[in-house]
Amino acid sequence: MSLNIKLNENYSSVKNNYLFSDIAKKVKTYSEAHPNAKIIRLGIGDVTLPLAPVVVNAIKNAADEMGKAETFRGYAPEYGYDFLREAVARYYDKFSVSLSASEIFISDGAKSDVGNIVDILGDNEILIPDPVYPVYLDSNLMSGRKVSFISGNQQNGFLPMPDGIPEKPYVIYICSPNNPTGAVYSRAQLKVWVDFALKTGSLIIFDSAYEAFISGDYSHSIYEINEARKCVVEICSFSKTAGFTGTRCAWSVFPDELIVGDKKLSALWSRRQATKFNGVPYVVQRAAEAALSDEGQAQCRQSVEYYIENARIIAELLTKKGISFTGGENSPYLWLKCPGGMKSWDFFDFLLENAQVVGTPGAGFGNAGEGYFRLTSFGSRESTLEAVSRLDKLL
Amino acid sequence: MSLNIKLNENYSSVKNNYLFSDIAKKVKTYSEAHPNAKIIRLGIGDVTLPLAPVVVNAIKNAADEMGKAETFRGYAPEYGYDFLREAVARYYDKFSVSLSASEIFISDGAKSDVGNIVDILGDNEILIPDPVYPVYLDSNLMSGRKVSFISGNQQNGFLPMPDGIPEKPYVIYICSPNNPTGAVYSRAQLKVWVDFALKTGSLIIFDSAYEAFISGDYSHSIYEINEARKCVVEICSFSKTAGFTGTRCAWSVFPDELIVGDKKLSALWSRRQATKFNGVPYVVQRAAEAALSDEGQAQCRQSVEYYIENARIIAELLTKKGISFTGGENSPYLWLKCPGGMKSWDFFDFLLENAQVVGTPGAGFGNAGEGYFRLTSFGSRESTLEAVSRLDKLL
Repeated sequence: MSLNIKLNENYSSVKNNYLFSDIAKKVKTYSEAHPNAKIIRLGIGDVTLPLAPVVVNAIKNAADEMGKAETFRGYAPEYGYDFLREAVARYYDKFSVSLSASEIFISDGAKSDVGNIVDILGDNEILIPDPVYPVYLDSNLMSGRKVSFISGNQQNGFLPMPDGIPEKPYVIYICSPNNPTGAVYSRAQLKVWVDFALKTGSLIIFDSAYEAFISGDYSHSIYEINEARKCVVEICSFSKTAGFTGTRCAWSVFPDELIVGDKKLSALWSRRQATKFNGVPYVVQRAAEAALSDEGQAQCRQSVEYYIENARIIAELLTKKGISFTGGENSPYLWLKCPGGMKSWDFFDFLLENAQVVGTPGAGFGNAGEGYFRLTSFGSRESTLEAVSRLDKLL
Repeated sequence: MSLNIKLNENYSSVKNNYLFSDIAKKVKTYSEAHPNAKIIRLGIGDVTLPLAPVVVNAIKNAADEMGKAETFRGYAPEYGYDFLREAVARYYDKFSVSLSASEIFISDGAKSDVGNIVDILGDNEILIPDPVYPVYLDSNLMSGRKVSFISGNQQNGFLPMPDGIPEKPYVIYICSPNNPTGAVYSRAQLKVWVDFALKTGSLIIFDSAYEAFISGDYSHSIYEINEARKCVVEICSFSKTAGFTGTRCAWSVFPDELIVGDKKLSALWSRRQATKFNGVPYVVQRAAEAALSDEGQAQCRQSVEYYIENARIIAELLTKKGISFTGGENSPYLWLKCPGGMKSWDFFDFLLENAQVVGTPGAGFGNAGEGYFRLTSFGSRESTLEAVSRLDKLL
């Protein structure tokens, strides 16, 4: 018996499975057939190092507070506790970016915010880089939006620019350092995008989830670029910076200057969050605050440096083998051209079968990703070295 | 300077502020003008008793796990860890309802699920009780849906039934025990709704957030009603049952029988959550699991009983004063007719100014709520008794 209600038909236009579910299934099948295989996962962008001690203590202290009537907390403010919004604002001081705490909206994840922001926007034309993090595309397809792709490729270093794009208003997604390519826009390139947005009245949604991996002279926040406050929502996360993938905390910045007609974009986001969200757990907000403290930053930095060294080790091998790649510095990702002109999923199978190394097929990030492959530096040092040694023999 | 992009114009049709933001502002203004006033808040439905000891310990143990490389957890499964999905399934055994763990989707809140479920549904006609929890209406208005109201009133005991409603497919929201009226549908009444849904091919979204307050012979889960699995998504929460308003955990049940054409509703929800959500914090899922353990249930039950006794105390006063009300048993809410034919917001001001007691104006829950007022039993015993004593003098 079937219900007679209507479903959101736009869901038919997204693939049935999320990319990483497909990979998990393939790996499961392989490991069931080869129970003794020592599989090394350099696929999904998930951290492996434990939470920093100061973060663990903050959770435990907050749990104790929640266990006493005098210090118990019920519903949190929907946009985050002031202590955390202010800590995030102070974090931006390091980049000489001045934000008011009220412009910062705390949430349970960059993925949630990236996915949910579609809610407050109308039927705009969408510009999405290809290849890119699948959520930008999927969340727009689910809302029936018209999506155009701006292609990343070897010629532009996987950093598509607005040259030749018709000058009209868009919602533009930019991720830098990029997932999956690891490529990072220079300040000059970001300025070109900001100028394009200002000229056309476009909104940029800037995903800075990997900014902590930047060591070179690149912008950590797009608000380092003049006038970006007038055209950009920036979304960032504790996931990679502080190992919060399983702890869940992020923020979005809606500067006061973001206005459509007489409406502030932040007002719509506030209304959305107040209606469909109920705040981040108190214990998690205290954990995030601790991660941003001086002591927390020093401890979290050690983990980031550890991953950066892993990336360097993988990059060294690729260079030695003459394999063309982007990323590997200023990013936890390495984006390589599959050797011998192999296709992405073929190379996935090739690595799984011959080296028991799991990566992510570039085609999973968009058509322009075909023939490419993503490796990540989030493994342990030991497994990264072992993977590199296996790849050294195989390739 | 304005952006030229289009916003979701449907946001213009919802009120600018969430009801409880309006109340908070009024109270703030009053307390700034009367700094010595001892305000008692019986307004928002927020718990005040601390987390149960077994829950606090679970958070602390999980935090320790997250602090060690061997036991650290990254991204959680998007639909919840099996240990929690299975614990929720076992919880339903108490009501003789048999659910598979795979039908249970863990989330960060019933508000999130109630708000986000609109995402996967098409342009259906919506039936919403009036008065009711504002999120049902607001989330549908934000998606541009056509909403019809089914009116609760003194004649039907604030339990609207489908009599006289044209027989066609709807998405129907039901909340029982009801927020804000505290009224509870009998099994026979729920069966009438389920039969109506089955006959018309309608989907019922059943909000059972307050089921823990039921002590009489009412259904804790709508799946206690025969064939409800074919037409109901049930959404429940740890917020009121285990004091999780600031800890954030809930679940939605998508039975396998919920099918539209060849599509399972659960498949669309899975796709939505995998795209726009990234799971509940590990430490919170362990906390929720602990709340469902035998020890946790015993500890949480004490808090619920405490609130129930508060409700009884308030109900006693209203009865003494001859004020007509629903709720006060099987519910943390008391829904009363404003004395002397006062309007809701006038009575709000009257109580705030003359007794420094904050309640919630019934009009905030819909037009049919005009002339009514909600009190909650979530205060401390002391403040509840003090409020009752003040109201006893005033009314």
